[in-house]
Amino acid sequence: MTEEQVAEQPGTEEPVAEQPDYGYVSAKDDYLKRLRRIEGQARGLQRMVEDDKYCIDILTQVSAMTKALQAVALGLLEDHIGSCVVNAAVAGGPEKDVKIKEATDAIARLVRS
Amino acid sequence: MTEEQVAEQPGTEEPVAEQPDYGYVSAKDDYLKRLRRIEGQARGLQRMVEDDKYCIDILTQVSAMTKALQAVALGLLEDHIGSCVVNAAVAGGPEKDVKIKEATDAIARLVRS
Amino acid sequence: MTEEQVAEQPGTEEPVAEQPDYGYVSAKDDYLKRLRRIEGQARGLQRMVEDDKYCIDILTQVSAMTKALQAVALGLLEDHIGSCVVNAAVAGGPEKDVKIKEATDAIARLVRS
Amino acid sequence: MTEEQVAEQPGTEEPVAEQPDYGYVSAKDDYLKRLRRIEGQARGLQRMVEDDKYCIDILTQVSAMTKALQAVALGLLEDHIGSCVVNAAVAGGPEKDVKIKEATDAIARLVRS
Repeated sequence: MTEEQVAEQPGTEEPVAEQPDYGYVSAKDDYLKRLRRIEGQARGLQRMVEDDKYCIDILTQVSAMTKALQAVALGLLEDHIGSCVVNAAVAGGPEKDVKIKEATDAIARLVRS
Repeated sequence: MTEEQVAEQPGTEEPVAEQPDYGYVSAKDDYLKRLRRIEGQARGLQRMVEDDKYCIDILTQVSAMTKALQAVALGLLEDHIGSCVVNAAVAGGPEKDVKIKEATDAIARLVRS
Repeated sequence: MTEEQVAEQPGTEEPVAEQPDYGYVSAKDDYLKRLRRIEGQARGLQRMVEDDKYCIDILTQVSAMTKALQAVALGLLEDHIGSCVVNAAVAGGPEKDVKIKEATDAIARLVRS
Repeated sequence: MTEEQVAEQPGTEEPVAEQPDYGYVSAKDDYLKRLRRIEGQARGLQRMVEDDKYCIDILTQVSAMTKALQAVALGLLEDHIGSCVVNAAVAGGPEKDVKIKEATDAIARLVRS
């Protein structure tokens, strides 16, 4: 890691940086809670299939789970733009373009998935 | 359940119908395997968040999981159209329209989720 | 097969079938009106770009246009399932499977686009 | 704030700012060309409906048109993040948060449309 990259990450002066400064880190518990709920939805779907539930009811649950997953993705993206992209923008240089490209590629994957 | 509805479901004359004839039932094991893998992806995402992985890498996994979930949904829909909708079409009557409406509503939810 | 079902099918014995019996044909005027409106939205977007409108406002219009287009697609799909797929289901045979595959492929393209 | 950064921003002191400096402006001709093609696709769809083309073929064209529209949206978003969001990040202050919120709301609309 170069000096410049270190400079982009506020709060890394301390030699023992216990966690990186990604945008989502401050909301980690919230994300973990949502992902555990999504894991539970995946288990619920398995029970529905095992119990021969009606296809349309299973599909309704799949849609709910997909929406929950996309909400997590949108939250992560917002946090990412608000921290990593913004930090790179302030730092400037080639890193800025790399971060923007990376973010828009992630958006494209999300829109197409 | 009316006579007509019973008639639409082949294999229900027997009083002990062990499983309904939904399209996906014959591929149950395959769906269960895919849903277990999706459940594993949800756990993997929790580990990534716990380990402070890079936001973009988490987003890439979220997109992969969303794709896997949509593939399950598309499979269920295909099985549903190929069995429930087709059976209702052959039986005719109001049930036919109910099934078509139900299927297209599920498609709409899927497209919008 | 009842009289009514025969009447619903394309390729009936009547030699002068002026138009195919696709599901959307009876709602042709409605579809044309919606597609003309979508064409107008495409022209509106060009004006916005020409007038250097704010990117976010252009994106809002693109989303509205995409939604309108998807509503047309969902309508066409519903009409298609309610006529072509149902007719093929009643007729049975290999054509039935072809139609189901075709419909689910179209759904998959729609979900992924 | 450096000279260069000032020059990148809309609303600079220069009285004759003929056009705002939104990210897409430099690629205006490309966007206009793509939107004209999309307008042509909307007209092509009308012809298909008028000529009673097969529903599935119409749906294939609708998917192609939706993809083209989403590619325009993704391009606009990339340009927007690379200019307006980056400029706001460099400028800092409340405007930064407004721009990030605006961008992520636009992404959410795009993902859900």
